[in-house]
Amino acid sequence: MLNRIQKRLQQDCGLSPQQKTVVGVSGGADSLCLLDILVRLQFPVVVTHFNHLLRPEAREDAHTVELIATQYGVPFILGEGATPDYAQEHSLSIEAAARELRYRFIFEQAEKNNAQAVIVAHTADDQVETVLMHLLRGTGLDGLTGMLYRALPNSWSDNIPLVRPLLEIWRTEIVEYCTERSLTPRIDATNADTTYFRNRLRHDLIPELESYVPGFRNRLWQTANLLAADRISLEELTDRIWQDVHIGGGFGYEIFNLESFNLQSLALRRRLVRRAISHLRPGARDVGFALVQRALDFSDQPTATGQVDLGLGLCITKENEGLLIAAWEADLPNEDWPQINEPCPLKIPGEVDLGNGWVVRAEVLLDVEAARLLAHKNRDPYRAWIDLGERKSSLKIRSRRPGDCFHPLGMHGRSMKISDFMVNEKIPQRARASWPLISAGDEIAWIPGYRMGESFRLTPASRHVVKLALIQSGKKL
Amino acid sequence: MLNRIQKRLQQDCGLSPQQKTVVGVSGGADSLCLLDILVRLQFPVVVTHFNHLLRPEAREDAHTVELIATQYGVPFILGEGATPDYAQEHSLSIEAAARELRYRFIFEQAEKNNAQAVIVAHTADDQVETVLMHLLRGTGLDGLTGMLYRALPNSWSDNIPLVRPLLEIWRTEIVEYCTERSLTPRIDATNADTTYFRNRLRHDLIPELESYVPGFRNRLWQTANLLAADRISLEELTDRIWQDVHIGGGFGYEIFNLESFNLQSLALRRRLVRRAISHLRPGARDVGFALVQRALDFSDQPTATGQVDLGLGLCITKENEGLLIAAWEADLPNEDWPQINEPCPLKIPGEVDLGNGWVVRAEVLLDVEAARLLAHKNRDPYRAWIDLGERKSSLKIRSRRPGDCFHPLGMHGRSMKISDFMVNEKIPQRARASWPLISAGDEIAWIPGYRMGESFRLTPASRHVVKLALIQSGKKL
Repeated sequence: MLNRIQKRLQQDCGLSPQQKTVVGVSGGADSLCLLDILVRLQFPVVVTHFNHLLRPEAREDAHTVELIATQYGVPFILGEGATPDYAQEHSLSIEAAARELRYRFIFEQAEKNNAQAVIVAHTADDQVETVLMHLLRGTGLDGLTGMLYRALPNSWSDNIPLVRPLLEIWRTEIVEYCTERSLTPRIDATNADTTYFRNRLRHDLIPELESYVPGFRNRLWQTANLLAADRISLEELTDRIWQDVHIGGGFGYEIFNLESFNLQSLALRRRLVRRAISHLRPGARDVGFALVQRALDFSDQPTATGQVDLGLGLCITKENEGLLIAAWEADLPNEDWPQINEPCPLKIPGEVDLGNGWVVRAEVLLDVEAARLLAHKNRDPYRAWIDLGERKSSLKIRSRRPGDCFHPLGMHGRSMKISDFMVNEKIPQRARASWPLISAGDEIAWIPGYRMGESFRLTPASRHVVKLALIQSGKKL
Repeated sequence: MLNRIQKRLQQDCGLSPQQKTVVGVSGGADSLCLLDILVRLQFPVVVTHFNHLLRPEAREDAHTVELIATQYGVPFILGEGATPDYAQEHSLSIEAAARELRYRFIFEQAEKNNAQAVIVAHTADDQVETVLMHLLRGTGLDGLTGMLYRALPNSWSDNIPLVRPLLEIWRTEIVEYCTERSLTPRIDATNADTTYFRNRLRHDLIPELESYVPGFRNRLWQTANLLAADRISLEELTDRIWQDVHIGGGFGYEIFNLESFNLQSLALRRRLVRRAISHLRPGARDVGFALVQRALDFSDQPTATGQVDLGLGLCITKENEGLLIAAWEADLPNEDWPQINEPCPLKIPGEVDLGNGWVVRAEVLLDVEAARLLAHKNRDPYRAWIDLGERKSSLKIRSRRPGDCFHPLGMHGRSMKISDFMVNEKIPQRARASWPLISAGDEIAWIPGYRMGESFRLTPASRHVVKLALIQSGKKL
């Protein structure tokens, strides 16, 4: 067993026998066995024990572990915390609260001691219980692979791995080892308490499943082991695809290329969404199937627009070629859109600085013939040549108003709501409300970047031509 | 329900409502519901029923199904087979024998009727039972995904898909449907018989697991559904990697590029091996973890050589850059090696045809100075210039003999077993026994393609030089 565990420690847990590690020791058979082996293999360890203040005999457990550490000549650190209070404050089960407090303490000690890792004594039996628990409660591939030999990042640290070298050792082997080495484990009475879900699995369900198929434990362990490799392959594939599909991100948002995203297989799309969510909500434990499915449904329905709530305070939206998953409160990326807040007049000739580097300029062109030629040849949507005709009113720059209509050039004079036009033209939703419009009286003369109004186009009869331009500073004028 | 099933039939099962399908109808609720829906959706069907000759009332079941088909105005085909006999003959359980006979019959009918598919009425409950059964007995990702909406190829056909449109419909919904539509299912008493493993799961275990976590059934179904997408992604990835790694194959063998194979992730290596085995042993049901692991252990240990038994009558071996998985009895690819079966003399000058396009030629070179220069510059392992010295014996071409030794050039006269030399030089194992050696008396003068003997090298004192060449016809002489 010593050799097997040494292999796991170095190959699978990635530990160096020269560097310090922090080991969690409850005093039970599993952790005593682990500690004994670490000492025999001469791994430098710091022993930690956490008293959850749940049982009267807990103080004695702590004392025993301290004594053992002293006998081995290794440092011992004791922590304690009022688990029931913590559970109540955070609406957690006693099990969850105990776990949270215990791990937080161990990782704090690992940080302080500059340890290479936290080692815990989970066994093959724990693995089977964990996988079965996930399976009963509903899970995907990741839950079915159970615990890992080396988990980094984990729920408690981004830089200190949580390692589990005993994952292939069965409890019966541990008990045997303790007997051989004359180790005397403390008995934790709560381990027999079948009001705890895990204990019901351990004491009732797993033995029963063994009666259905002898060797069930081993088979489920093997299944988890097989799936772990599949999971790694899919994660590697996701890494690769993420590089292609993820086109941006910032504080509180992630952006995929919508088209590339929708080209991926269902499994990969799910993983991409989960990964984005794990960046936005690290440690979130309830990223359910339905949440991910909402994101997928939104992404591949061409008619789905706006911002859709995903849960966990996140939303999903489309913008140009992008699919954004974002926190509702996030400052989404500033796309350098031209925006106008307060309406203002545009003199002819003259220019208005919109801020954010954008300027609208109006010029008078006297050579109507040349203007028509330029307008005809123009491919730049940020330039327009308009004929104000008999209109006396001057030009104004303003944002859209409820009910605003527009006769887009080329639509035979048909009228269209500005809001519909903006949706059709895929103006990013966030940019629409303050997108600058050039109006003359009640009419919209030009929507910079998109279209001018039909009734403003130049004709052979045009006499007064105004050249309009929306210019981004730094770009050629 | 009608709409949901229509969607599954067309989208997931890939059926055309214009083409004929063959449906398996036992007379139970599931298959009556399925048939009723197919008829209502105007899918052209042929009803088949198989009498397993297991229960006295089976004849009545058949009669009932025939009557129903007649009422719907659709064709009916009856099959029957002595299940207990078949089970005994093939050492199968009654369940497995019944299944084998039934499906074989249905697919025969599908073939005869030129049907686009075989449809069966497996429900969401069947799916959960199947996944749980696989889980208890030990499985990997593929077993956990359970049954597919559309399986092609399947165990019974390479060109007719087996489709299951009811996989998301629960038994309670089926029963409700039958009541609404006044369908009267036949009761199969064996469904209540808990000596059958599946029935124990259905009647005892699953309700118990529901008591652990209410909604367990739905969760497990969802898990299988999630895993199905992961499986598809991994299969697609395997398809792609197979193209790169699989470098050949033939009747009874598959060849991977050893180096590329070993570069793949564990999950992919497992899948590549499984795929090779599924080509060599189609329909094999007992490709266990251990078999696949034997192949992986052999492939990534540089010291592993020879032919290793994998089980299922297959072996694995390495040859040059290739990793071969082959049936023991397979005629492995002819690599066009030079081979000699009967020893024969090699005159000087003279040549010997080894067959298979190979010729050994000996020439006398009089200009010793020129010969030494040529020998020095030579990079072609199929040429050698040797000095026979005082040896009077003529040259011979023969294969190796037990105990044969050799003083390879450049090893300071050290002696080496020919067999070790061949292993070191990675001469393909199958080629070693008949690889041609050129001997002079008891000494090996040259191993064509590899090395000449130290004591045959040219020196300034050399007087008699023989040029040896192994020539493959078609190659330049």
